[in-house]
Amino acid sequence: MKRFTHHIFVCENKRPDGHPRGCCADKGSVELRQLFKKKIKELGLKAEVRANAAGCLDACEFGSTVLIYPEQVWYGAVQQSDVEEIIESHIINNKPVERLKIKDKRFNKDA
Amino acid sequence: MKRFTHHIFVCENKRPDGHPRGCCADKGSVELRQLFKKKIKELGLKAEVRANAAGCLDACEFGSTVLIYPEQVWYGAVQQSDVEEIIESHIINNKPVERLKIKDKRFNKDA
Repeated sequence: MKRFTHHIFVCENKRPDGHPRGCCADKGSVELRQLFKKKIKELGLKAEVRANAAGCLDACEFGSTVLIYPEQVWYGAVQQSDVEEIIESHIINNKPVERLKIKDKRFNKDA
Repeated sequence: MKRFTHHIFVCENKRPDGHPRGCCADKGSVELRQLFKKKIKELGLKAEVRANAAGCLDACEFGSTVLIYPEQVWYGAVQQSDVEEIIESHIINNKPVERLKIKDKRFNKDA
């Protein structure tokens, strides 16, 4: 087994106000990651799953961006209300959440 | 093909001075990532390889920590002088740099 079975990267990049690309921090990604951390702890998954802060993942237009490795699944516009489904479906049952995948083939070929 | 063939996460976490675990930022990780970015650009690999900032990767004692996905290879004590070898060996030739792997089986089972 690797150090982490799943490694969740939540973009916490903050751009100056009014930047044309926007940024994930302005869409609530900092609080989003805190919720991932909380749920992972509650479910006793802390030893094998980590919700990590990331700098800009270069998917600003799709934020809040959440990227899960080792599968490299890109989720966009992730809300707090999506966290439980991502953990249950993707992390626990290894079924990525199709409806949340970034619908751009540069990110997810199958989306 | 996925968005990135290799995604390099460089821990840029900064802890208060004197913290017992230390931190990667104090070991030069911010400048380290800049060098990764520069080399990636110079080699024309920017479209498929990204050197990303990461928050704490929880390997503070081994910093500067560099984590490469999708393989989940953990490198420790990475210096600017190691960047070229990591890119050439690991990124271009898919041969992880054994001597730089964190020698702790929690991180790299084969190290």
